[in-house]
Amino acid sequence: MAKPSAPSRERIVAGAADLISRRGLNAASIRELAKHAKAPLGSTYHYFPEGKQQVATEAVRYAGGAVARVLRKELEAGPVAGLRAFLALWRGIVVDSDFRAGCPVLAVAVEEPPVDEASPALAAAAEAFEDWERLLADALRAEGVSPEQAAGLATLAVAAVEGATAMCRARRSAEPLDRVGEQLEAAIEGALGRTA
Amino acid sequence: MAKPSAPSRERIVAGAADLISRRGLNAASIRELAKHAKAPLGSTYHYFPEGKQQVATEAVRYAGGAVARVLRKELEAGPVAGLRAFLALWRGIVVDSDFRAGCPVLAVAVEEPPVDEASPALAAAAEAFEDWERLLADALRAEGVSPEQAAGLATLAVAAVEGATAMCRARRSAEPLDRVGEQLEAAIEGALGRTA
Repeated sequence: MAKPSAPSRERIVAGAADLISRRGLNAASIRELAKHAKAPLGSTYHYFPEGKQQVATEAVRYAGGAVARVLRKELEAGPVAGLRAFLALWRGIVVDSDFRAGCPVLAVAVEEPPVDEASPALAAAAEAFEDWERLLADALRAEGVSPEQAAGLATLAVAAVEGATAMCRARRSAEPLDRVGEQLEAAIEGALGRTA
Repeated sequence: MAKPSAPSRERIVAGAADLISRRGLNAASIRELAKHAKAPLGSTYHYFPEGKQQVATEAVRYAGGAVARVLRKELEAGPVAGLRAFLALWRGIVVDSDFRAGCPVLAVAVEEPPVDEASPALAAAAEAFEDWERLLADALRAEGVSPEQAAGLATLAVAAVEGATAMCRARRSAEPLDRVGEQLEAAIEGALGRTA
């Protein structure tokens, strides 16, 4: 993900998103996040004076935004096309990393935040999930699916794809994502058929 | 989860499962796992001479087995009853911990194993997911659902419940699990209806 050249703010954020998706947030120090992005620690603190939580929060927003852009574009061809793009994106990350990388938003969501402290990274994870759900639900509603059913299917799709990404990593196989994709496509096509 | 008395092997394993579900595997040292179970480090090494990976592997097996026992029992009343029990179990853990704990199997699945080393904890996570899927698929097939459809729905259910558990933690709300539950119930009832 990171190439050896002058480190940009975005390269540090992208590198952090990748490392967090592999190792988890609690286990990654800011030194490791910088190293993974091939950025000097000094540049990293220059861009992110608040330290690790700031890098992590921006990494989650970066990943959330990148996925949302793909979804928004592909959903123009309909809910099934959007779902397929969402699945293909995670499938690519998991398979191309030899099942070592996954979703940085999920990684942050499953780790306990510091006690008695607001966790902007966790809040960014909640926002990313909600953005993806909203985009899918909007596309379903645009095809005539009821608001309640659209919201339910969108949450099901995001939850199942996120969960299947983890199952693929444990099993070292893309089968869970492929199975979940078939089931979600059938569920979406069923909902679209009922509006016809 | 752990009470101050002579530490048993099982208490250490149960405590480790809880801490791993909160903090992730990479970020939890064996010292912290022992402390969380209120067990001396000496007893912990006595029971688990191979150290942290051994505790973690047994913790994942323990959680996988506990969930499988609930599933097996509740599936006797049918696939929907089993699904509801599976959801209720995770909902209870997430809500009762104030959204700080979740699924230790998922926690281990989303963390990169050591390079060039077999990871028995990751293999145990894959087995736990597969056990739960098999139990759900068997119950669906027993009601006449085709093997392929049963396998697909079972993977969808496990993936969506695992993903929704993470979404609940990020959002500090049980809504994702509740929505996913409704959708999965409808999908299972749809599949059962088609066999009638």
